[in-house]
Amino acid sequence: MDKEKLEIMRHSASHLMAAAVSQLYGDVKFAIGPAIEEGFYYDFDLGKKTLNEDDLRKIEEKMNELAKQNLKFGKEELKIADALKKVSGQPYKEELIKDLEKEGEKKVSFYKLGDVFEDLCIGPHVKSTKEIGHFKLLRVSGAYWRGSEKNKMLQRIYGTAFATQKELDEYLNKLVEAEKRDHRKIGKEQELFLIDPTVGMGLPMFQPKGALLWRIMEDFWYQEHLKNGYQLVRSPHIGSRKLWETSGHWGFFSQNMYPTMEVGRTLEEAKAGKKTDVKEEYILKPMNCPFHVTIYKVRPRSYRELPLRWAECGTVYRYEKAGELSGLTRVRGFTQDDAHIICSKNQVKSELIRVVDFITFILGTFGFKEYNVYLSLRDPKGKTKYAGNDEGWDFTQKVLEEVAIEKKLNYKKEEGEAAFYGPKLDFKIKDAIGREWQCSTLQFDFNLPERFEMRFINDKGQEEQPYMLHRALFGSFERFIGVLIEHYAGALPLWLSPIQVRIINIGAAHEKYCQEVYEKLLQKGIRAELDLLNETVGNKIRKAEKEKIPYTLIAGDKEVVAKTVAVRKRGEGDKGPQDLEKFIEMVTKEITERK
Amino acid sequence: MDKEKLEIMRHSASHLMAAAVSQLYGDVKFAIGPAIEEGFYYDFDLGKKTLNEDDLRKIEEKMNELAKQNLKFGKEELKIADALKKVSGQPYKEELIKDLEKEGEKKVSFYKLGDVFEDLCIGPHVKSTKEIGHFKLLRVSGAYWRGSEKNKMLQRIYGTAFATQKELDEYLNKLVEAEKRDHRKIGKEQELFLIDPTVGMGLPMFQPKGALLWRIMEDFWYQEHLKNGYQLVRSPHIGSRKLWETSGHWGFFSQNMYPTMEVGRTLEEAKAGKKTDVKEEYILKPMNCPFHVTIYKVRPRSYRELPLRWAECGTVYRYEKAGELSGLTRVRGFTQDDAHIICSKNQVKSELIRVVDFITFILGTFGFKEYNVYLSLRDPKGKTKYAGNDEGWDFTQKVLEEVAIEKKLNYKKEEGEAAFYGPKLDFKIKDAIGREWQCSTLQFDFNLPERFEMRFINDKGQEEQPYMLHRALFGSFERFIGVLIEHYAGALPLWLSPIQVRIINIGAAHEKYCQEVYEKLLQKGIRAELDLLNETVGNKIRKAEKEKIPYTLIAGDKEVVAKTVAVRKRGEGDKGPQDLEKFIEMVTKEITERK
Repeated sequence: MDKEKLEIMRHSASHLMAAAVSQLYGDVKFAIGPAIEEGFYYDFDLGKKTLNEDDLRKIEEKMNELAKQNLKFGKEELKIADALKKVSGQPYKEELIKDLEKEGEKKVSFYKLGDVFEDLCIGPHVKSTKEIGHFKLLRVSGAYWRGSEKNKMLQRIYGTAFATQKELDEYLNKLVEAEKRDHRKIGKEQELFLIDPTVGMGLPMFQPKGALLWRIMEDFWYQEHLKNGYQLVRSPHIGSRKLWETSGHWGFFSQNMYPTMEVGRTLEEAKAGKKTDVKEEYILKPMNCPFHVTIYKVRPRSYRELPLRWAECGTVYRYEKAGELSGLTRVRGFTQDDAHIICSKNQVKSELIRVVDFITFILGTFGFKEYNVYLSLRDPKGKTKYAGNDEGWDFTQKVLEEVAIEKKLNYKKEEGEAAFYGPKLDFKIKDAIGREWQCSTLQFDFNLPERFEMRFINDKGQEEQPYMLHRALFGSFERFIGVLIEHYAGALPLWLSPIQVRIINIGAAHEKYCQEVYEKLLQKGIRAELDLLNETVGNKIRKAEKEKIPYTLIAGDKEVVAKTVAVRKRGEGDKGPQDLEKFIEMVTKEITERK
Repeated sequence: MDKEKLEIMRHSASHLMAAAVSQLYGDVKFAIGPAIEEGFYYDFDLGKKTLNEDDLRKIEEKMNELAKQNLKFGKEELKIADALKKVSGQPYKEELIKDLEKEGEKKVSFYKLGDVFEDLCIGPHVKSTKEIGHFKLLRVSGAYWRGSEKNKMLQRIYGTAFATQKELDEYLNKLVEAEKRDHRKIGKEQELFLIDPTVGMGLPMFQPKGALLWRIMEDFWYQEHLKNGYQLVRSPHIGSRKLWETSGHWGFFSQNMYPTMEVGRTLEEAKAGKKTDVKEEYILKPMNCPFHVTIYKVRPRSYRELPLRWAECGTVYRYEKAGELSGLTRVRGFTQDDAHIICSKNQVKSELIRVVDFITFILGTFGFKEYNVYLSLRDPKGKTKYAGNDEGWDFTQKVLEEVAIEKKLNYKKEEGEAAFYGPKLDFKIKDAIGREWQCSTLQFDFNLPERFEMRFINDKGQEEQPYMLHRALFGSFERFIGVLIEHYAGALPLWLSPIQVRIINIGAAHEKYCQEVYEKLLQKGIRAELDLLNETVGNKIRKAEKEKIPYTLIAGDKEVVAKTVAVRKRGEGDKGPQDLEKFIEMVTKEITERK
C-alpha cells in the first residue's frame, strides 16, 4: 500500500477510535486525531477519567464492533456560524474553527462516520470502515493541548493500522523486538552507562564496561584514521565569544548553544565599576570547526600541504529541550568523530571518494552493510539564503552526485535539504530490525572559509580559498554506541565486547587452574574475567548469558587434568572441551577478523 | 653558602643597585627592593625615563665602581616623625612608613650604604659591599606599585648575585639553557601547539605533531592502567550546579570555577515570567571526582568489589587570572590523568604501594629518574578546619609515611600543607637542568565520601564508608608535555617522537626508492615522513635537525643499488650506510625499549 493511502486509512482509524470513545465514555471533549509516521493518535479530554490498559482493550473491542457494521464516511460542508453551532460544547473544536475563520476560511468541512460520530476534518477518508484494515491500540499518554504546557493536559491514545493482519503482526513484533533491544534498558543491565539527573539530563556517564567499549572503538578509529592519511588535532571545550561571532554560530545557532560564561569580573563588580581583571566571555563549543580553522590559520599555507585531513574526537555541547532527550541517541553532550578536509578544487573528487570508501569500510566493520544515502542540495528557488557562490554550489553538488553514482550508492536527491553552508551526503544505516539511524555525514562548507578568510598559495603563487569538508563516520560516539547496542540487542561482536571471555570454576579445587587460564588469556591480549564466586555453575553460566559474554570457559576436575577448557559460546551453548592453546588461537583469529 | 646568607647578600645587592640608580638618574622615587627566589629586584619611579638594556649595563658598571670602594652598610633607628621627615619627597617610602605606624610601630630602621644611599629597611645586610659577591642585572620590566593595576606602573630591575663567579656563571648559563628549552618557543618551532587569544587565553590547541604526541602518551597511559588493574570511566565536561553544591566545590572552590550556565529559560524570559522549559544550571567541571562518585553510587556496593580503581583522562577547567597563565604549564583547561581508588581500610596500604610503584615506573619511562617527594600533613593545631575525623587522619598520615619509608622515597614532611580534605604525597620531578616541576600526586579524600554518603556493605553485612584516593601521574597532559619539551629541549625520545624517521632523496631519480623505504617503515609501525622537495640535501638535513627528528635516512644512487640507507642520528650525525632491514630492526628495538 502506498504511503498516502496508508495515511488516509490510519486517519480514518483515528475517527473510528474517537467514535468508540464517544460511545463508551459519555462526556468527551475531542481535540485532534491525525495520522502519524507509524500510525495515528487522538487527543481526548475525559474530565477526571484516566484511561488505562483495560480501557484500551475495551475501546479496541468497540472499534471492532463498529467496524463490522461497515459504517460509511460522509463529508459535509458548513458555513462558520453553522459549524460553531454544531460543535457547541466542544471547546477545542470551537477554538479550531475560530482559528480557521481568522485565516480567512468561510466554510469548514465535517466528516460523518455512519450515525455514530461526526468530526471537524479536512479529510480525506476511506469510503467505509471495511477499508480501515487491521488496527491495534498501542498506548495512552498525556499530551498538552496544542503542545504547550500552559494548556490543559489531555489524554492521547496511540494506535496503528495496516492493510493486512500480517503487516500489523510484523509491526507489533518489531515493537516487541525494539523494546527488548532498547539501549537504555540494556545499558543499565550490562552496566554500560548511566544518566543521572543530579549530574544533568542528556549527559551520559560511562561505567567501566561502557568506557572500555568506547576506548576499543576509539583505538580502532584512530588507527584507521592514521592509516588513511589523517592527522590528529586537539581543541578545548570552550572558546571565546569572539570566535563564535566570527564563525557565525553566535548568530545562527545560539538557541542551541549554552549561554556565555563571563570571567574576569562578576556582574556585580562590573556594575560597581570594579576593574580586577579584563572581562572575557566564553562559550561551550557546539562544534569543533572554528578551532581547526584557527589551527589552519596559524601560518600561511601552500598548495603543497594540501589536502589536509584533520581529525578529532571532540566532545561538543548543544542545548536540547529536556523533553527531547533519550538515552544515548538524543543527548546534550556528544563526542563527534569529526574531521575536516581542506583541499584545492582539483582534489575535491578524490577526497570525496576516499571518504565514501572510508565510511563504507567503517560501517561495514561494525556490522552495518545496508544503508540509505541522502544527497541534500540547495533550494534552486531560494539561492540567496545560502553561503557561497553559484560556481561553488554547482561544482560541489555535481561532484557529490558523480561520486554517489560511481560508488553505486543507493542515494536519493533532496532539493532544499542542504544546510545553508553547503550540500551534503548523509548515510542512514539500517539496523537488524530494519530501523534507519542517521550516522555518517559528509558536508561541504562555504561559510567558514569565507568568514575566517582561509587561504592558501596556489601553484601560481596566488592566494586561493580552499574547499572545506566536514565529515563524521559514527556521527557521535554516544549515538553510535546506542545504535550498536540496539542493532546487536546487547550481544556485541567479540572484538567489541568489553569482556570477551568469562572463566568459571566448578569448585574451590579448580580456582588455581582458572587463575592460570585467566593470566594466559590476559597475556594474549584477550579481555578475560574470572568468576570464582561460591555459587552453582548453572547460576554462573546464566549470569554470563544474561550479560551476553561471547565465550564462557568452565573448568572442573577433567579440565584441570587434561589442560583443557569446556567452552560455551554465546547463542550456541555448549561447544564441548577444547585445548586451551587451540581456543586462544581461534578466539584471537576471530578478534583479528573483527567478527 | 646557606640560603639565609645568600638572601642577605642579594638584598644588599639590591641596595647597591638603588645607590647606582640614584647616582645615575637624578630624580628617582624609590619603592621596594627585596631578595627573591633566584636573586633580587628593586622598583623605581623614574618619571618619564624608560630604562633599556644600555641603562642596565650602565647601572651595573656604576654598581661595580661603588662596590670597589668597599662601602659599609650601617643601621640607624628613627622615630616615625623623624623618619617621615627624612623621606620627604619619596611618596612610596612615606606610604610605607605610615602603614608601619598604623600597625603600631613607634620606630623604623634605615640602612646607609657609605654616604651614597640610605633606605628604609628592616635589614639585615652584609657588612660592606666587598661581601656582595658577584652580581648581574638581568632585565627590566613594568610592575604596579603594590601589585595593583589601580596604582602607578613602576620600573622593576631584576638582578642576581652569587658568592662566586663560578656560581654566577652557572646560573647565567642555566638561564640561557632554560630559554633555549622554553616549551613555548619549541612548541611553535616544531608546530606542536598554539594558544590564540581569539580562541582564549590559557586554552592550548594541539597541531598535528602535538596531538600525535598526546595520543602516543595516552595510548601508553591507558595500556599501562589496564595492565595495572584499573578500569576506565568517562564523564561529561559539565554538571548541574546541584552536583557541585553537594560536593562542596560551589562553596570552597567557586572562585576558580567558571560561572553557571542557565538553560531552559533566558534571563529575559524568566523576568517576564515565561515558562518555556524547566530552568537548569550547569557548571564546567573543575574536577572529575563528583562524577566518579555518582557512578559509584549507581547501586549498592559490596566489599567483594573493592578496591575499585577508576581512571579517566578528563579535561577540567579552572579560572586563573590572565596574568598567571604561561604556555602549557599554567593553563585554564587541562586534562588530568585522573584516577580514584575506592577501597576498604585494610586495602589502603597495598593500594598506596601500588600507586607509588606505578608513579616511579611511569616517571622513569618518560626519563625522569630524580624527584623530591613532599608529604603534606594537617596542621595539628587547627584540626577543626579539616574534613574527616582524627582516626582517619592519624591512620592515613601514618600509612603514607610508612609507604614513603618502605619505598625509600626522598621525602620531606610538611605540617599544615595538607588539603582540607586529606593528607597527600606530591612528587616533584627534576628536569635536565635541575628545575623542579610538580607532577604526580596521591591524595586522600575524607570530604567526598562524607558529603555523598558513599558506602559499601562489609563482610559482616554492615554499611561502611570506604577510603577514597585521588591520584594523577602526569598531573595533567598539558603541563607534562610542557615539562617533557623543556626536559629534552625538544629532542623527544624516539618512542615519543611524533616523527621518528625522515627520508630524504638526493635527486628525482631516487624518489621511487624513498617511497618504498617509506612504505616499509609505515608497515612496521614506524612513524616516517618523506621529504622529496626539490631542495639541496644539505638544506633538507638542516631542516630535519632543526625539527629534532631522531633519524634521517638519505638515499642516492649508491643506496638505491645496494638497497641500503645512509643514516643520520640526531645529536650524533652521520652513521654511514646501513642495510634497511637492519635499520628497521634496530629502530624497532629502540622504540620497544622506550629509549
